[in-house]
Amino acid sequence: MDRLQPPLPTRLTDLLGIDYPIVQGGMVWAAGSSLVAAVSAAGGLGLLGSGSMYPDVLREEIRRVKAATDRPFGVNVSLRRDDSPTLLQIVLEEGVPVISCSLGNPNIYVEKMKARGIKTLHVVTNTKHAAKAEQAGVDALIAVGIEAGGHPGPDELALTTLIPQLHDATSLPVVAAGGIVDGRGLAAALALGADGVQIGTRFIATTEASVHPSYKEMLVQAGPTDSVLIARNVELVRVLKNDFAARIAKAQADGASATELHELLREGRPKLTMYEGDVQNGQVQAGQGVGMIRDILPTAELIQRMITQYRQSRSAMPG
Amino acid sequence: MDRLQPPLPTRLTDLLGIDYPIVQGGMVWAAGSSLVAAVSAAGGLGLLGSGSMYPDVLREEIRRVKAATDRPFGVNVSLRRDDSPTLLQIVLEEGVPVISCSLGNPNIYVEKMKARGIKTLHVVTNTKHAAKAEQAGVDALIAVGIEAGGHPGPDELALTTLIPQLHDATSLPVVAAGGIVDGRGLAAALALGADGVQIGTRFIATTEASVHPSYKEMLVQAGPTDSVLIARNVELVRVLKNDFAARIAKAQADGASATELHELLREGRPKLTMYEGDVQNGQVQAGQGVGMIRDILPTAELIQRMITQYRQSRSAMPG
Repeated sequence: MDRLQPPLPTRLTDLLGIDYPIVQGGMVWAAGSSLVAAVSAAGGLGLLGSGSMYPDVLREEIRRVKAATDRPFGVNVSLRRDDSPTLLQIVLEEGVPVISCSLGNPNIYVEKMKARGIKTLHVVTNTKHAAKAEQAGVDALIAVGIEAGGHPGPDELALTTLIPQLHDATSLPVVAAGGIVDGRGLAAALALGADGVQIGTRFIATTEASVHPSYKEMLVQAGPTDSVLIARNVELVRVLKNDFAARIAKAQADGASATELHELLREGRPKLTMYEGDVQNGQVQAGQGVGMIRDILPTAELIQRMITQYRQSRSAMPG
Repeated sequence: MDRLQPPLPTRLTDLLGIDYPIVQGGMVWAAGSSLVAAVSAAGGLGLLGSGSMYPDVLREEIRRVKAATDRPFGVNVSLRRDDSPTLLQIVLEEGVPVISCSLGNPNIYVEKMKARGIKTLHVVTNTKHAAKAEQAGVDALIAVGIEAGGHPGPDELALTTLIPQLHDATSLPVVAAGGIVDGRGLAAALALGADGVQIGTRFIATTEASVHPSYKEMLVQAGPTDSVLIARNVELVRVLKNDFAARIAKAQADGASATELHELLREGRPKLTMYEGDVQNGQVQAGQGVGMIRDILPTAELIQRMITQYRQSRSAMPG
């Protein structure tokens, strides 16, 4: 579709060479080459979700994105994964323009990536980790708030308090992640001092996301209070209310051990919902903004809508 | 002090006849006539916290505010309190310009108040209660997010998701409450569709708040992750980490019954901290933005600083 909205420059768009300060989160199962290429071609930054990919699949997906668009894109890697060194090596070999890493020490990868001109984004949930990441030399921070779907981290800070604190604590560009589904959320994030947003759940409800249609449909149907945190003190996950979430809540109320809960969480693995379409017995990961998702859209249209709404929100703020 | 900042008009300031869209929460013990008069005189809306007042004390405090300023102010009443009908009657008799009510059915008070020209604000935490309050005829909504100190309500929605959903669900002005301590938070709230903010914790760290100096000092010292939710599933309260919070967490981990937890919560009553200054054995209520509070300021200066920062934040947002 035509890009009616002019670019929206921030420190993040300058850093990454993109038009709009919108990063698409590297969600497992959803963020394959179709979605990533679509987001990047539409002026944002797509991130491949390596979490659901074997190394050779990741390499293939990277090549597919490159074939589909010449715009910058990236890969998200969880450093907690055993084979993360292999994944990092693939990112280096393939010359992926951007890497985003979570759950680990940035010193492991930053220097190597920067030596090849790869931009580094590091996921943080508090100012302490932000200071460490800055010291390690990362290019920008992805700040995950309690609103985020999936694993929002243990600090439980909402974006309203996390973003301004990070802005005060570091000089790096900050990308706000969690619960943001539209241009109002983007405007709020920039008002708080962020330089962009990372959006996950909203990009799953797009024509290009590679998940089962039942999952997309459940996101559209979900109401304002349907996203809940489960497994607190064990492995905090934000999901939609369903049979699986109720089962975890009951097990916790009945005093299940951490081991038993980890076992249950494995059984309710995201794949069951996202790939196989079982929206009752699987983990339906979704952020707190899910109640505002009302349609499944082509990615390019969604991004144009967000930027249009950003500009409307900003203009409506009294001077 | 001089008001250097021109008024910041929104639907809320029009409704209430105030200069800046800042409501000071009616916090127990802190929000007495000194603070309320100072906030209203400085262009915001002060709310007396009737929660820590006997009826005759409330009447006296109302009269003190009237004697100190001719600007609009209000009273916050918890409808859950047994003697709330008496408090409502006092508000009517004294012709207080604004009332804010929480934890109850708005039909109980709205018609009577509006008949006397009293503006009605009703506290909500989700779109369902907002729809009921709108139907009852309230003038505006106070939307409390999970970031809020004290009792943020059971829905656990962050302001980033609560505010735009309320904006879509009702036509009433919405006041965002929770975690906001400065002009960046005000800018974010307005970007999300709110018409103003209610600020609690930040107004406790002022020269005019009527609490023990040790409580104010603890707010200034608190770090980014020192505000926590305790007593989940029993009586959710947001407080600062201290001996009391640790005691509640331990009791819950040890499987204490709801009755036992309620008993403990009563022992750790806010008065012990706020009035008597025991910051370890009392409930130190504080919102999630507490880590950004770095000084105890005169109220008028604080409000000017917030409006200045709001305008800076808005201007820094790319067009």
